Amino acid sequence: MNFKEELDVKTRNVEKIIYSYLPKEEGFAKNLAEAMNYSMKAGGKRLRPLFMQETFHLFGGEGKVIEPFMAAMEMIHTHSLVHDDLPALDNDEYRRGKKTTHAVFGQAQAILCGDALLNYAYETAFLAFSMCEDPVRVGRALQILGEKAGIYGMLGGQALDVQNDGNPLTAEQLDYIYANKTSALIEGAMMTGAALAGASEEEIFLIESVGYRVGLAFQIQDDILDVTSTREELGKPVFSDVKNRKTTYVTLRGVEEAQKEVRRLSEEALETLGELESTNLFLNGLIRFLITRKK
Amino acid sequence: MNFKEELDVKTRNVEKIIYSYLPKEEGFAKNLAEAMNYSMKAGGKRLRPLFMQETFHLFGGEGKVIEPFMAAMEMIHTHSLVHDDLPALDNDEYRRGKKTTHAVFGQAQAILCGDALLNYAYETAFLAFSMCEDPVRVGRALQILGEKAGIYGMLGGQALDVQNDGNPLTAEQLDYIYANKTSALIEGAMMTGAALAGASEEEIFLIESVGYRVGLAFQIQDDILDVTSTREELGKPVFSDVKNRKTTYVTLRGVEEAQKEVRRLSEEALETLGELESTNLFLNGLIRFLITRKK
Repeated sequence: MNFKEELDVKTRNVEKIIYSYLPKEEGFAKNLAEAMNYSMKAGGKRLRPLFMQETFHLFGGEGKVIEPFMAAMEMIHTHSLVHDDLPALDNDEYRRGKKTTHAVFGQAQAILCGDALLNYAYETAFLAFSMCEDPVRVGRALQILGEKAGIYGMLGGQALDVQNDGNPLTAEQLDYIYANKTSALIEGAMMTGAALAGASEEEIFLIESVGYRVGLAFQIQDDILDVTSTREELGKPVFSDVKNRKTTYVTLRGVEEAQKEVRRLSEEALETLGELESTNLFLNGLIRFLITRKK
Repeated sequence: MNFKEELDVKTRNVEKIIYSYLPKEEGFAKNLAEAMNYSMKAGGKRLRPLFMQETFHLFGGEGKVIEPFMAAMEMIHTHSLVHDDLPALDNDEYRRGKKTTHAVFGQAQAILCGDALLNYAYETAFLAFSMCEDPVRVGRALQILGEKAGIYGMLGGQALDVQNDGNPLTAEQLDYIYANKTSALIEGAMMTGAALAGASEEEIFLIESVGYRVGLAFQIQDDILDVTSTREELGKPVFSDVKNRKTTYVTLRGVEEAQKEVRRLSEEALETLGELESTNLFLNGLIRFLITRKK
């Protein structure tokens, strides 16, 4: 198997794990469960749970304790997409070629669906208590998950992004938004993977810096593709950032500088991983793949 | 001190505890923290954290481990109010005489504020791991909190309520909505209080049935006050359920039947509490007070 084939197999496996933790569509809350499952099954790269699983393996993690956390992480990510697409925020009718949750279920149910996904993420992660002999490890992973998803992580970045909507951003504001809106959940994914495998605080801290760089490189690559790709290749309209007068790394520093930065961040991430005793070749391959991707 | 004075002192104390866990209004997420704190400081009876604290004491609980959970419970409750008031749901500009969160901060920030409060509830509850020698107890309390707030608790009730907006409800649907939208968090409050104090599973189960009855009685009393109170006494418009063609216990069964049901539920709750070895006289007084309240 080449890397791309291995990635496809692993992604399908991650998806199978996530789907096994979704709520049943039955009883009085059937409609809400349907909205949650519709959002969760609407596709996506499943990068965050994949990074979590691979980091878990990097630190020698074994068993199923990682699985509820993988599902929880994807639920948190999906909750943010469902609310981000709402008319009061980005007002998107389509995502990845499919109708967004509020377009199908209405705004009120989409708001509650996002809430229920965020809450269900924690309900799901709590299942790990009965799958692990060490509740302290689960507790540490929960603390990481909570921090990276909230006001000092993703939601903090979201809030500043929304607040400045339409106005140009300073480089400092853009850094904050990228570090939180995008990097925080990737940091959290890798850190919980490490924590659940029993990594030391020093190792978790090191992995945080890897996740930070991977997340940033991923976001800047997104900005680059918006101006260098075609609609056919990307699967969505190009030059959308320019049209929406959105401040991005590319609008602030230009494409060439952005490409250099992506390379620099990825190399640093790989170098930092190289400081560890163990190696996960697939994880390294994944980081390299993300910076050469065309969509 | 009479009961009312004791209640006031305890409520102020609960509020002090909750406020000590709110996020700081600083940095790039200042605006989001302001919206969260505005919502949390907009008043309320603080019943859920009060029930939690009193149940904790009923089971001999000691120390500060209960405090982050009290704050977490009020954050979850407030998150639901912030989203419930949104234009896509109840569209309320005022709550308890104050402008609602979206009326002050805009819809987009109000959506993110509700999300951040829900997430911060868990971040806050996770602090209990470092305040308790027994992580298993904290884990059990977290599982209860998650279940009672989510699709199999409050949010499930919310979703059915919103879905049926404007249409008459069957008695079965109304029971489901009351049991989940209102009772679930009161059950959760009392159950986490019990769990953190080290109560047995049997005792937690018994307390769940008490919380269920207290929540139901509280909600039906609300329905009764809507048709028997005055605007001055209640502090909000009366006969609103009839005007909004809302199905309530009173519209389904009449005021007299409703009053009988409130008395029956409260007596059952007190009888069940009487089965326990220990007694908390204030908790008993609180249950009696809620059914005789005028607002």
